[in-house]
Amino acid sequence: MSAVNHQVRLAARPSGLPKPSDWSFTEEPIPTPGEGELVVAISYLSLDPAMRGWMNAGASYIDPVEVGDVMRAGAVGEVTSSEHPGFAVGDHVYGAFGVQEYALSDGNGVTKVDPALAPLPTYLGTLGMTGMTAYFGLFDTAKLKEGDTVVVSGAGGAVGSVAGQIAKIKGCRVIGIAGGAEKCAWIAEELGFDAVIDYKTEDVRRALRTAAPDGVDVYFDNVGGEILDAVLTRLARGARIVICGAVSQYNATDGVRGPANYLSLLVSRASMTGMVVFDYAAQFGPAVREIAGWMGEGRLTSREHVVDGGVSAFPEALLKLFSGENVGKLVLSVQPEE
Amino acid sequence: MSAVNHQVRLAARPSGLPKPSDWSFTEEPIPTPGEGELVVAISYLSLDPAMRGWMNAGASYIDPVEVGDVMRAGAVGEVTSSEHPGFAVGDHVYGAFGVQEYALSDGNGVTKVDPALAPLPTYLGTLGMTGMTAYFGLFDTAKLKEGDTVVVSGAGGAVGSVAGQIAKIKGCRVIGIAGGAEKCAWIAEELGFDAVIDYKTEDVRRALRTAAPDGVDVYFDNVGGEILDAVLTRLARGARIVICGAVSQYNATDGVRGPANYLSLLVSRASMTGMVVFDYAAQFGPAVREIAGWMGEGRLTSREHVVDGGVSAFPEALLKLFSGENVGKLVLSVQPEE
Repeated sequence: MSAVNHQVRLAARPSGLPKPSDWSFTEEPIPTPGEGELVVAISYLSLDPAMRGWMNAGASYIDPVEVGDVMRAGAVGEVTSSEHPGFAVGDHVYGAFGVQEYALSDGNGVTKVDPALAPLPTYLGTLGMTGMTAYFGLFDTAKLKEGDTVVVSGAGGAVGSVAGQIAKIKGCRVIGIAGGAEKCAWIAEELGFDAVIDYKTEDVRRALRTAAPDGVDVYFDNVGGEILDAVLTRLARGARIVICGAVSQYNATDGVRGPANYLSLLVSRASMTGMVVFDYAAQFGPAVREIAGWMGEGRLTSREHVVDGGVSAFPEALLKLFSGENVGKLVLSVQPEE
Repeated sequence: MSAVNHQVRLAARPSGLPKPSDWSFTEEPIPTPGEGELVVAISYLSLDPAMRGWMNAGASYIDPVEVGDVMRAGAVGEVTSSEHPGFAVGDHVYGAFGVQEYALSDGNGVTKVDPALAPLPTYLGTLGMTGMTAYFGLFDTAKLKEGDTVVVSGAGGAVGSVAGQIAKIKGCRVIGIAGGAEKCAWIAEELGFDAVIDYKTEDVRRALRTAAPDGVDVYFDNVGGEILDAVLTRLARGARIVICGAVSQYNATDGVRGPANYLSLLVSRASMTGMVVFDYAAQFGPAVREIAGWMGEGRLTSREHVVDGGVSAFPEALLKLFSGENVGKLVLSVQPEE
């Protein structure tokens, strides 16, 4: 084990896709816990499209990461020292530990996870924030009902792949939109979606006419942009659109593309509603148990796309989210570097 | 009384603002009612921004007006002959009678109105579809609550002026956005809105920062475009946006401007929901009685902007809606032409 804690900090606010020069690499001594604190050796870091938003200045649903700060990230790891009554050395935990090898924490927002029930990376994905986002986006924001025709964009990604599977379990017709043959095959063959549209090779609007002849009741949008506009042309009366994210727009340098077809909300008496998963923290427990149950029954598949290379690989790994290279939940494996 | 029925028909589907050549003027004999029918001499025609949408081809919440058809319009008038058991000569009625002097009807969708309770044009506005739109948009779509900060665009128009007054009656802080000193003075001084923003001379986004320091809970949008984008930057947590119309976009020839700031729905956990007044037809009765009650108590002012000139003045009168010339509900007075 190295004696230093390698960290990745925000060096500059990016314009467009984050560049290498937007990051700095620092080393600090491994921290020592004070009274009521613990230290965690990080095993896996969560890579999320939302990180791009955290790098911008200005008010949002969460404070921006300040230039010079360790980049914010969800992570799982193992407690290596503790002066906190709730955590013991050897406990596996989840928290917003940041892009570094070791994190000092006062225990706020830290939850124990059980590596015997599921591999650690799953606690960053299906049993973590992305699974919770899919769950509450469907049940609370979209008021999912059995028999709904549900369209999910980013369907090969972390949130989309879980959202589509949950909708299938609940008796919906599910159409996934994703980019590339590999993701589309996985969604259709392994996840059992009813239809898949490859936006890189198909006309989404036309494909939806075939896949959702009676219109779309629920659209779980992770991408925004042209795909959102295409789905807006196919809404059923009373459709509910969940605005979960807009990965196609996060690096736009000439402004976000607004949905030009938004007046179909009027025509279809439809709604478009934003959601932020942190609002549901008090209800995570039962939701995790329900999802874990579906996984145990073999009804829900969790897939993590693990990138090796430690924290120094973070800047490049993050870009995979925006090029759409990841299938399932993108995580970075962290091994302390010499 | 002339022996002919002058009519205005759609001659061509407009691109942009309707041109004179998009209309044709026809004459027919005044119809004679058959069994179960009635004939109405029209007194006032309702002019509505939504008419522009009805002139386009393609699916919407209502069938388009076909080229060659009498232009669709709500109207009030007097029954001049009847073979319908529910209507007698001399009855005053409302219906979708079209842009003409006399209408033949089977009574479907025709309702009696009482000219002793309110002037006939009021039944096209505050006690008609525009009042109903304001009422159900606020109470059903926006779930209006006492204490909400409510922003209304098109606040000097037919729907907006009523929506703002209803929100005031319900104990909300109401901010009107309108164009021009005359409308703004009317809204502030006669209708008692808490704040008024003149979008022609003020920066709406900046003005909202002052007028709604704690954010906007309900936005009743009649205009779309830049104003919608400005309000999106000032949403309170859980805000509800009613998409009632988008008069700024109806004549756009280079595509509708989508709301580029729509991701504030996510940041603010807000919703944007479309509504169509016809859905509430079964509930119009009690709503009209409640609004009439407020008018009787002097708490709600109804204003109609009456244009003279008969049906031949329709094409030019309609354009006032898009130049923003009307204050209150725009109606066309119809006198049979020689």
